[in-house]
Amino acid sequence: MKLVIGNKNYSSWSMRPWVLAKGLGIGFEEVMLRFDFSEGSPFYQALAAHTPAGKVPVLIEDDGFAVWDTLAIAEYLAERHPEAGVWPRDARLRARARSLCAEMHSGFGQLRTHCPMNIEADLRAKGAELMAAEAGLRKDLARVCELLENALSASGGPFLFGDFGAADAFYAPVAMRIRTYGLPVPAAVGAYVDRLAAAPGVRDWITQALAEHDFIADDEPYRTAPSQA
Amino acid sequence: MKLVIGNKNYSSWSMRPWVLAKGLGIGFEEVMLRFDFSEGSPFYQALAAHTPAGKVPVLIEDDGFAVWDTLAIAEYLAERHPEAGVWPRDARLRARARSLCAEMHSGFGQLRTHCPMNIEADLRAKGAELMAAEAGLRKDLARVCELLENALSASGGPFLFGDFGAADAFYAPVAMRIRTYGLPVPAAVGAYVDRLAAAPGVRDWITQALAEHDFIADDEPYRTAPSQA
Ligand SMILES: N[C@@H](CCC(=O)N[C@@H](CS)C(=O)NCC(=O)O)C(=O)O
Ligand SMILES: N[C@@H](CCC(=O)N[C@@H](CS)C(=O)NCC(=O)O)C(=O)O
Repeated sequence: MKLVIGNKNYSSWSMRPWVLAKGLGIGFEEVMLRFDFSEGSPFYQALAAHTPAGKVPVLIEDDGFAVWDTLAIAEYLAERHPEAGVWPRDARLRARARSLCAEMHSGFGQLRTHCPMNIEADLRAKGAELMAAEAGLRKDLARVCELLENALSASGGPFLFGDFGAADAFYAPVAMRIRTYGLPVPAAVGAYVDRLAAAPGVRDWITQALAEHDFIADDEPYRTAPSQA
Repeated sequence: MKLVIGNKNYSSWSMRPWVLAKGLGIGFEEVMLRFDFSEGSPFYQALAAHTPAGKVPVLIEDDGFAVWDTLAIAEYLAERHPEAGVWPRDARLRARARSLCAEMHSGFGQLRTHCPMNIEADLRAKGAELMAAEAGLRKDLARVCELLENALSASGGPFLFGDFGAADAFYAPVAMRIRTYGLPVPAAVGAYVDRLAAAPGVRDWITQALAEHDFIADDEPYRTAPSQA
């Protein structure tokens, strides 16, 4: 099984199934395609060989069967590895975890637009500016904090539904944004963000993102060069 | 079990679980909240009693347990009614159906923005204008047609994976838009749109949408009054 992903520093969608599989000990071979959003680029050419949807991530079985889109990949991993703990065992907690993942999947547009994931960057000054200027961003962040706090207080932690699972993987890119942009969050959320960043799969992703030293202008609305050479 | 929804004429998200449950014979009680997107409106007040996510649809169990977001609701129905056929029986077809639903769930932003669902309206002239002006809309429509054609030719129809299921329910609002805006689609897609509009749950939704005779200005970028009184 292969998982085709984009740049680790930028690709929030790719991060989810990757940290989920790693965090749960599900083996896969990684295929990293360097982002290049110009028409007909090597990125799109390589991608077209794997998936009709034209986006990363995509999971490829050994015979070429493709599962695309992070939520479908999470469900596929859950079915293939029923013991791994992708979803909580309890039916209602499972429904709740899926509500959180699906809400993330189609929501939080303002947080995404204004604060694109950029793990190696320090954009705390920009984050303060954005928080002052953008009501939509403040609203998205408030809802994220509310749902994280609710889940953590219901489960008692350390992760959203107790052990690390799909819901944590889906909110991992948000945790990265909270750090990069220094977004103000309640203490319980800040502590969760730190725990998540230290969770095995997530920590590996961050380490590898920091080692990339790549700069994709299309993903850099706020910088013209990396912070350090 | 209750399903809280918005206006049938406009609420594309509400349409999905409603037509899915109806189409598969899964019983529920409908709670319709008339849209009103002003802060603190009766819509938002009623909604707050049901769901922390502040959006329709939301499924409520008899003891108040809430499942929100259409994809989580579909998975919950599938788990509660394993024989109903929410997803295909074959594991790979199931993964494929989920890829299609998840792609819809977070994608097709241009199609959504430019062509909001409006079942009773005839916006064919506007649709022609938009298709000429908006490259993003053309791209979204091309991808929708491609994925519908691929699924239909792989399954042989009549629905995306043979029998009516979640993938059809998720694309039903797109079928409504294709009709309202007269969007140009290949013959196989046009025939599928007609079949889908005639499928039991979908037909009922359309009938009830047409009977609503409501006009929500926030959902009407292209009209100032209904077409017919
Ligand atoms: N809903 C998709 C979204 C995937 C997505 O948007 N991926 C981005 C990179 S993070 C991409 O491949 N973009 C290429 C493009 O849109 O042309 C998923 O969950 O997998
Ligand atoms: N991802 C959600 C989206 C639901 C959604 O956006 N619902 C709209 C109506 S169709 C809504 O309730 N909007 C109210 C608001 O955003 O304030 C789902 O799949 O259920």
